[in-house]
Amino acid sequence: MTETELLKRRNKLLGKAAPLFYDEPLHIVRGEGVWLFDADGKRYLDAYNNVPVVGHCNPKVVEALSRQAAQLNIHTRYLHENVVNYAERLTATFDTSLDMAFFTCTGSEANELALRIARMTTGAKGIICSNCTYHGNTAAVDELSTMFTGGRSSSPTVRTVPFPDLYRPLNGLQGDALIDAYVAEVAKAIESLKAAGVGFAGLLFCPIFANEGLPSAPPAYVQKVARLVRDAGGLLIFDEVQSGFARTGRMWGQDLVGVVPDIVTMGKPMGNGHPIGAVVSRADIVNAFRERVMYFNTFGGNPVSCAAGLAVLEVIQEERLVEHVAQVGEHTLKGLRELQQRHEVIGDVRGTGLFFGIELVLDRERKLPAGDLAKRVVNLMKDRGVLISRLGPNDNVLKVRPPLPFTTEHADQFINTLNDCLATL
Amino acid sequence: MTETELLKRRNKLLGKAAPLFYDEPLHIVRGEGVWLFDADGKRYLDAYNNVPVVGHCNPKVVEALSRQAAQLNIHTRYLHENVVNYAERLTATFDTSLDMAFFTCTGSEANELALRIARMTTGAKGIICSNCTYHGNTAAVDELSTMFTGGRSSSPTVRTVPFPDLYRPLNGLQGDALIDAYVAEVAKAIESLKAAGVGFAGLLFCPIFANEGLPSAPPAYVQKVARLVRDAGGLLIFDEVQSGFARTGRMWGQDLVGVVPDIVTMGKPMGNGHPIGAVVSRADIVNAFRERVMYFNTFGGNPVSCAAGLAVLEVIQEERLVEHVAQVGEHTLKGLRELQQRHEVIGDVRGTGLFFGIELVLDRERKLPAGDLAKRVVNLMKDRGVLISRLGPNDNVLKVRPPLPFTTEHADQFINTLNDCLATL
Repeated sequence: MTETELLKRRNKLLGKAAPLFYDEPLHIVRGEGVWLFDADGKRYLDAYNNVPVVGHCNPKVVEALSRQAAQLNIHTRYLHENVVNYAERLTATFDTSLDMAFFTCTGSEANELALRIARMTTGAKGIICSNCTYHGNTAAVDELSTMFTGGRSSSPTVRTVPFPDLYRPLNGLQGDALIDAYVAEVAKAIESLKAAGVGFAGLLFCPIFANEGLPSAPPAYVQKVARLVRDAGGLLIFDEVQSGFARTGRMWGQDLVGVVPDIVTMGKPMGNGHPIGAVVSRADIVNAFRERVMYFNTFGGNPVSCAAGLAVLEVIQEERLVEHVAQVGEHTLKGLRELQQRHEVIGDVRGTGLFFGIELVLDRERKLPAGDLAKRVVNLMKDRGVLISRLGPNDNVLKVRPPLPFTTEHADQFINTLNDCLATL
Repeated sequence: MTETELLKRRNKLLGKAAPLFYDEPLHIVRGEGVWLFDADGKRYLDAYNNVPVVGHCNPKVVEALSRQAAQLNIHTRYLHENVVNYAERLTATFDTSLDMAFFTCTGSEANELALRIARMTTGAKGIICSNCTYHGNTAAVDELSTMFTGGRSSSPTVRTVPFPDLYRPLNGLQGDALIDAYVAEVAKAIESLKAAGVGFAGLLFCPIFANEGLPSAPPAYVQKVARLVRDAGGLLIFDEVQSGFARTGRMWGQDLVGVVPDIVTMGKPMGNGHPIGAVVSRADIVNAFRERVMYFNTFGGNPVSCAAGLAVLEVIQEERLVEHVAQVGEHTLKGLRELQQRHEVIGDVRGTGLFFGIELVLDRERKLPAGDLAKRVVNLMKDRGVLISRLGPNDNVLKVRPPLPFTTEHADQFINTLNDCLATL
């Protein structure tokens, strides 16, 4: 089957508009560690995929999954060790106040549940999110998918606030004044929800503003917002779908910003590709919700999903990935900062752990976003065997988020290839 | 670890109100075909679980899943054969008009997507569902979860209609007059949505009214409702999460009632326990939605999920499960009807394929629902090694829905055990 025929059948069955990467889509057939292989046997360094967090086809995860699938796969209305062991192990990675879990199958389901919990707990409807984000594909969370709608939400119960951009600062402010200006926007949104009579249920942020293209958000901002949200009677929800599981060189994004939320949601890397999501929260919040709502998730927390999830946590611990990520991340960031010296087109380099945003601009002074150039770079990188993507409100931020077994050698290959691609522009 | 300790840890981590079956919860550790085994090695005939549709730990499905998990597991923004092959194979089981698919991870996500599509396609918001149903755990579909809310929905965009109960007929009517009375309720609901200014987007039914406790809905009713819905400009959505994949002795519930819907949703048995869901619809509907909405599902349609889904379809075909279910189902239904002669408490027996509702009543004349007795029977059956559950608006309908490799011998064991349990009441 040629790629052309496969694409034709795909268009007919899934739709021409079903999303695909690259001008000429890649036909990937095999994965191993940080490597992906296409149908012609060409090898690609994967510097994009965050879901296979402990490496493509990690043998330990595959083995745990396969062994449990051959023994029992069933819902959680019977007792089973796996869901209990996994909940115990997972909650132990958080502040002690976050000691209970719900299991879902996806980050969308986790965020849906978090919003239901926040709204039921507070009796209010209003939710605040950032103006360039994405929290999933279901209706209630789609109301927060402001990255597709120019920063606005059409829902009367949602308010958006500008994300804390230090590169293109609000009103040209700097330092504490800038942080306070961003925080003031949250205060205005809370007032607006209260004035509209829908009340304030909570605020949902990715603690590192991943979709906004900011993998290094200012902790002071998040800390001030947390105080404001609580003083106003709302719940603080962190979407750790992208920031969690050692991505930032800390186990969770919340560790990085020094704020313990009321509710955490997670998904993507949790099962290294197996569909798992979760909501972790405090006993008072979880028990009150459980008493009032019969929440059940058919596949959520099943023995196979929990076996995969447990294996991921074990690999992160055994291979000391948190420390590894911090170290390789620092090396990579240094290399990217050197590239920035060499290439005028790199307006800003941001990064924490193994998550980088490289902002391309047409002009450093005016910071004109170079979205088309970013697209070209992503395609050029692919042709040279390195996979990355782009994001941000202007789609001009290169998005780099490799599987965590990425080493300094891999980082050097990525940086050298990026250097070559930028040189051809 | 004793069950008491396991339960204690579970209560602490997941919550005391996290649902569990039975007065004394079962600790299941292994599954094989139609059998489940507890921690003491006791064997249970599984006459309840519909998710492991081709049998617990079906070797063909486990092998397909394990093989693919060791080779590649990745999202669908690269080309891959599995998602295309699976979409082709899956849509081929429907009427030729239903020729495109979206993949999700759960039935909840599939129903969420179906509602988004219906609302976007029609430009209207109003949805009709039955007054004793459940379509998932996310916010938009939870508005339809009328089985937990006494038949009502609190949403201004949802109307509920009485499900077509022939055992407890509306206004004591019979025959065509009864069907027409139920259909008239749908007409009223459409008018009510239009009068309220929200418009009529569509109607979402399980074609066999599984949650309502009616695995044998009158086809004439569904056919008349379908005409009414289309004449009013709405879309007809069938939730085939329970009725699909050979359960009824036909591949789909829609084959049984002789109606082709505009949108079909599916989930539970699709991957024999692996988290997969899907929406299947017509090209005009899917393409128009895809053009307007960037729908992406991280795990949906990944190579591992599709390998599991393909294996399930292959087993259904190779083992001729549609025919098998029809035959064993008929045998079982005959046995249940004989039981009804012997036990006054059985007010009604309904069934299609391997899905049965056995309605227990305190008094056949007055049809007083025997919910407490049904609960006792479910627990007694478990003690005697057979797993069933109960459902319906009064929780008095025994719910029987075994994995499909259930044979006439298994059916006889189930019926004999039920006979013994009813004799002890």
